[in-house]
Amino acid sequence: MNKVVALAGGVGGAKLVFGLSKILTPDKFTAIINTGDDFKHLGLKICPDIDSFCYSRAGISDQKHGWGQKNESWNCLTELKKLGSETWFQLGDKDLALQLERARLLSSGLKLTKVTRSLCKKLGIEANVIPMTDDNVSTIIHTEEYGEISFQEYFVKYKFIPRLINYRFDGISNARMTPESKKAIEEADLVVICPSNPWLSINPILEIENTKELIQQKTVVAVSPIVGNIAIKGPAAKIFLEMGIQPSAFEVARLYQSIIKGFVLDNKNKNETDTISSWGIIPFVTDTMMNDDRSKIRLATEIYSFAKKTLRT
Amino acid sequence: MNKVVALAGGVGGAKLVFGLSKILTPDKFTAIINTGDDFKHLGLKICPDIDSFCYSRAGISDQKHGWGQKNESWNCLTELKKLGSETWFQLGDKDLALQLERARLLSSGLKLTKVTRSLCKKLGIEANVIPMTDDNVSTIIHTEEYGEISFQEYFVKYKFIPRLINYRFDGISNARMTPESKKAIEEADLVVICPSNPWLSINPILEIENTKELIQQKTVVAVSPIVGNIAIKGPAAKIFLEMGIQPSAFEVARLYQSIIKGFVLDNKNKNETDTISSWGIIPFVTDTMMNDDRSKIRLATEIYSFAKKTLRT
Repeated sequence: MNKVVALAGGVGGAKLVFGLSKILTPDKFTAIINTGDDFKHLGLKICPDIDSFCYSRAGISDQKHGWGQKNESWNCLTELKKLGSETWFQLGDKDLALQLERARLLSSGLKLTKVTRSLCKKLGIEANVIPMTDDNVSTIIHTEEYGEISFQEYFVKYKFIPRLINYRFDGISNARMTPESKKAIEEADLVVICPSNPWLSINPILEIENTKELIQQKTVVAVSPIVGNIAIKGPAAKIFLEMGIQPSAFEVARLYQSIIKGFVLDNKNKNETDTISSWGIIPFVTDTMMNDDRSKIRLATEIYSFAKKTLRT
Repeated sequence: MNKVVALAGGVGGAKLVFGLSKILTPDKFTAIINTGDDFKHLGLKICPDIDSFCYSRAGISDQKHGWGQKNESWNCLTELKKLGSETWFQLGDKDLALQLERARLLSSGLKLTKVTRSLCKKLGIEANVIPMTDDNVSTIIHTEEYGEISFQEYFVKYKFIPRLINYRFDGISNARMTPESKKAIEEADLVVICPSNPWLSINPILEIENTKELIQQKTVVAVSPIVGNIAIKGPAAKIFLEMGIQPSAFEVARLYQSIIKGFVLDNKNKNETDTISSWGIIPFVTDTMMNDDRSKIRLATEIYSFAKKTLRT
């Protein structure tokens, strides 16, 4: 298990990426982050999933809100409100500075992968975090109430209350893997699918070109974002229900059945291991809650050990 | 003299536009503003000349600096500095909010004229202020020290210290007049060329399509930006010298000779009236300094009266 790649979205995913990036050096670990949640806001390209990880890894994240930076001020947002602008996506003054610097680097012609590397460096982050693609892919949620809306509108503006009828990844068929993501996957001995939304966070990554096929050749372990029958954060459990599926860890494992060799599920789901084993997947039961840096590192260590000992081919 | 159009740049020009907009109702007055100074900064389109007028007209301009908003804070800029971003163009948090709202409106597909109207409305400004074009035109300064640089780099970053060898308006041959600017000029009884830089602020406006020809059919009065032999603000006098011309009011009049019928010059230049008259231009000598709102309105009133009484055809 020399080299590890993680696939992740922004919430639980970013937490496990944090843990893995703390126990594995940058030459041994690459996180490929979903960018389907990226969107254009006030003329700027916002990458919430990348930022979520970066702020947390740089030790500047607002732990209370779970988004944005700590010790934040809101002067620009206050003025935007006065101007009657769009303010449902709350950008603090510091957060905004990062978005502007990203915009500056992008408009200088750099690709998102290089821009992300540069921003990480500026934030003092040594971990290898790359976007799933340098192309624009937008997760569009078809809702009952508002028709088709962007992921951030669904997630932030409407707090994932609308009923999801369907979803699609706009631009996915033209999006290309980056040389960096291709190389990382090809060289990987282990791929960890983080506890992110399988449909909306992991699916877009797998659907870029032949990412899924490349990953199928690897030893893959997935971590359930469903604990008990709920999602710790985000709409995963709700979407399961809207798709007519009772949310559970084994239903997540079922979605990844053709890819994974191992599956990590929470103590609360330990009675689901037989079902998972019956599909030829090796289950690993542990405490998957990541409430602080310590537990993120602990879970990352456990998953790495499990994969090393049990999944070795 | 029913309808008046003013052509202006950002510094002295914006001051006279302020005065004119205070004595003439929006149905009788339109200001056409140079947008060659606009530039892309941190991924945002910044329109310094339009903003300069708007902030002053809305009563929120920073009188001390002569740019930006009063009671400004700098939290985002401070963070941009930490990130090692470009911070020579100082955007305060409030100023930034306006730039972001402009970006939002532009990315929604609105043209700059409509965006400007919307921003004016949001700022409570009733005056008719329109950009010279909805297309991108960039004033490029060819300097001895730095080669070709944008106007804002020349003006703000390098404080117009570099020697100007030449200048050009990138994109001008493809730029079109807007229906709004065409209509305003066609309906105008009087065109006032404000005390802006003749080369860098007024020239771009005149060079959009057949603006100059349209204006030549009108009664035109220009106001000298040179007082004595200096420019109150900006590089006009310095550029005169770099072009081998001794800066004076009559040299400004000479530049506009084919267009203007009247010329307003400062008391300090009163001995230049004979030269100006000898070209068939009617001079009007007064105090052209505009240090406060009162003097802006006074000068506007004097120019309007002069034109009404003396230049009537």
